[in-house]
This record gives sequence, structure tokens and C-alpha cells, in this order.
Amino acid sequence: MTEISPKHPRYASLRRREGLARSFRAGVVVPEGLIAQGRGEAFDYLLGEATLPSARRAERAAAAWLRAARHPVVSVNGNVAALAAREVALLARARPGLAVEVNLFHRTRGRAEKIARLLKAAGVPQVLGVRPTATLPGLPSDRARIDARGIALADLCLVPLEDGDRAEALRRAGKRVISIDLNPLSRTSRNADLPIVDELTRALQGIRAALGGAPGSADGVFPRFDAPAALADALRAISRNLRRSRGSARASPRPPRGSARPRRRTP
Amino acid sequence: MTEISPKHPRYASLRRREGLARSFRAGVVVPEGLIAQGRGEAFDYLLGEATLPSARRAERAAAAWLRAARHPVVSVNGNVAALAAREVALLARARPGLAVEVNLFHRTRGRAEKIARLLKAAGVPQVLGVRPTATLPGLPSDRARIDARGIALADLCLVPLEDGDRAEALRRAGKRVISIDLNPLSRTSRNADLPIVDELTRALQGIRAALGGAPGSADGVFPRFDAPAALADALRAISRNLRRSRGSARASPRPPRGSARPRRRTP
Repeated sequence: MTEISPKHPRYASLRRREGLARSFRAGVVVPEGLIAQGRGEAFDYLLGEATLPSARRAERAAAAWLRAARHPVVSVNGNVAALAAREVALLARARPGLAVEVNLFHRTRGRAEKIARLLKAAGVPQVLGVRPTATLPGLPSDRARIDARGIALADLCLVPLEDGDRAEALRRAGKRVISIDLNPLSRTSRNADLPIVDELTRALQGIRAALGGAPGSADGVFPRFDAPAALADALRAISRNLRRSRGSARASPRPPRGSARPRRRTP
Repeated sequence: MTEISPKHPRYASLRRREGLARSFRAGVVVPEGLIAQGRGEAFDYLLGEATLPSARRAERAAAAWLRAARHPVVSVNGNVAALAAREVALLARARPGLAVEVNLFHRTRGRAEKIARLLKAAGVPQVLGVRPTATLPGLPSDRARIDARGIALADLCLVPLEDGDRAEALRRAGKRVISIDLNPLSRTSRNADLPIVDELTRALQGIRAALGGAPGSADGVFPRFDAPAALADALRAISRNLRRSRGSARASPRPPRGSARPRRRTP
């Protein structure tokens, strides 16, 4: 692998990318997961690679919902484990009773076990979903498998980087869904009751900060959240950033190239 | 691999994704290439997954530049070979004298040979760059390697899905650069003399259609092209699509979820 110079304009993003490529080689992440990461990168770039005020509000609401829930579950796939196993562990400690369940689009027993080991090494006390014992209706059989002690029982599912079909199926099954997805137009974001449009680790840190270590009361009082307004705000932020970029593109001092210039000799 | 239903709302994009994942398993595409594909997908989605009129104009200008050039070269990396080997071969036939050079960010001899074989099987008569014989100034040594008969000699480089550093180095070396890149904000797009903001296969088909089979005259007359205007147009198109999506997000009939609703029982 080429070494990246810290002077490179996108050093942080490139480092995260290399880390994911390593997890891929270790069998935690699948090729489709790398493509999904790229889609996220593009949206994060358009959002300015920072947490929007509306996303911060969504993270606070997510913390309140996690406190209010009776059986909250966070669903972990290969990308989530690769990018944020430590953050998942810290969240599970900050909200006692939060179940952690492995949930894979491309499931093999070996991969599920690898991800469970990674989560445990990061500090998650118990990992569900390695040997699924229930099914979620309305999905192809290989993607419907869930844990009877986890998602099957859950009233609230936190689904970071989730597939659109699955987010929809969870909602149809009567569960409240909190998504973390950088694409405000994705089916996952549109189907979530509480969509968080923010980068995974920033979002998990934001939720944990808002939890503040207070124990969950499981009182069933879920503060209102206006999902369409949150998504519309993220779209407005992208438009704003694009307008700024357009301004600087127009301000470019480079003259148009064309026939007016003599043909240059190559070295 | 899970089989995708043709009824899936993003069937075409998912099929392309699976094809790339296969090329990855064959060693043609590297993990970083899959992430790059995801970034492209996000921008294609925002552009409406169709060729913009401004991109069509850029493709026509690219055809005129290819005709005008004395030593045009198309640079091929793993993703380009995986997604469009056939289109590269058809372009090379439509513009006799167009050199095809393998150019890898993550170069190994084995990978370069694999890509050359793939291009030859698709109908490219001669593939340069497998054993590089020259260097491009201003790049880390492993990425500077070029072919003395190809890019080193070129007056015009067509660089699809190119890295920003390399696009910049080509331009500094005095070559005209035509890029194909879905991100109008990328350093590659911003550094190109003629940026085409379109999906790879659509762009190559567009250039080939505009070439029309006429032989190159190599007259050195490169019609003017206003690169900043082309990029600004792509950014405007994305903004327009986002505004439309925002409208439909607001029109969503889903009521906000919150404490007003009784807590539901999970099944």
C-alpha cells in the first residue's frame, strides 16, 4: 500500500479508507461494503465533513429514545465493526441494557464470528446474532435472520449504515428505527423514524455524549422527532455547500483552453 | 453473493456493483478502487444517473480534441478495465493512433499484466505501460512510472477515473488533460482542461459517437472549451435534483413520530 503523506489534502479520509481496506483483507468487510463506504464519503464531503446542527439535534433525540426504550438494540454489520467497534462498545456501556447484534447482508458463520470477536475485543460484553434464532418478515431468507433475544424482541433499533430493504422491514415489523446514514436521500434515511445524517463515528460519539451516563428509565416516552424536516435540512446544507463551490469554480483564474493557444510541445 | 431481484429499485447500479466486486476477486480492482466506485455512484445518483447536456457537449469537444491531437493516449486503471474494457477497445478503433496505457495507483507487475490481458481480450490491439520505461515528474516514484511510447510522448491524455495528484502532474508536464469523473468538485475535474462529468461507460460511448469514425487529422486545432463553466453546470444540476428531492421529502405523508403515540408492542 502506498504511504499517504500527512500533507495530502484529504489525509484523514484516506487514512479511514486504508483502515477499511485492511479490515477487508481481514475478512470483516465485504467488497460491497467498500463501495458503500465510498458512497458515504461522497455525501460526507458534500456535507462539509462536519456534524450539522440538525444532526446534533437528531443525536440528542436518539439518546432520549435509547433511554426511553424497553429493549433497545444496536445492529452491527461489517463496516460498522471495522470503523467503530470501540464506539459501539462505549455506547453499550453508556446505556446499560442496550443489546448489540451482528446483522450481515452477506452472512457467513465465519464472518459473523469474526465480527463478534472484534466487538468483544473492543469491550462489548455480549454479542447477539452470531447464531440467529428468529426471522424478520418480508426479507429474503438469508437477510431475515435475527436474534430472538435481540432485534426480534426490540422496540427500538439503532441501525448504522443499514440496507434500505432491512430498514423498511424493521419498521413494518413495528419497531422504531434510528438510522445513521450520510445519504439523506437513501431509503434507509427515508424509512427511519429518526434519521441521523452524520458520519458513523461522529454520530455514535454524539449520541453517547447526549446520553451523559444517566441510566435508561425505559418509560416509553419518546420525544417527538420530525424526520422529514431533519432530512430536508441535510439536503439544504448540501445545496449550500454546492453553491459555495460553484462560486469558487467561477472565480477560478484559469483561462479556457482552446485553439487560441499554440499547441505545446511535450517534454 | 445474494441474488438481486430485477424489481429492486436500483437494479442496474447493483448489477454494476456486483460486476466490480467480481473483478475485485479476480485481482483487477483493488479495495481502494471499490471505495472510489462508491463515491462515483453517489455523484451519479445526484446527477440523476443520466448524461447532462453540458456533459454531452464536453464529450463532443473531447472527440474533437482526440482528432486534433498528435499523440493522444487513454490511461487505463483497474476500475476502468473492469467497467469498460470493451468501450476502451471500441474507442481505440474509432480513433486510429490512440494509444492505450495501463496506469495504476497501486501497481504490481502481476496486476498490470492482468489488466493488459483483459484489454487485449476486449479488442485493444496494443497495450502500453505494462513495463514502464519513463517517469512523470512530481509524483512519488511508484506512481510516476509511464511508458516512453505513450504518456511520456503524449500531447493529450484522456484520464478516466484518475487520481488528483496524477491529473495535476500530467498538466504540469504540459499535456492537455481530458478527465472523466462524476465528481465535479474533485481535484481531477478541477485540474482537467476538459472535464467530463459523466459516468464512465456513458462518457466513452458519447465520445465515440461524436468521433463518428472519421480519421484524426492531428491538425493541432483544439476547439475552445470552458472547463469552469462545465463544472459549474454539473454543480447546478446536482442542486436542482436536491431541490426536487427536498420537495418530495416535505410532501411525505408520514407524521412525525413521538410521545403523542402510544408505545407499540413488538411482535
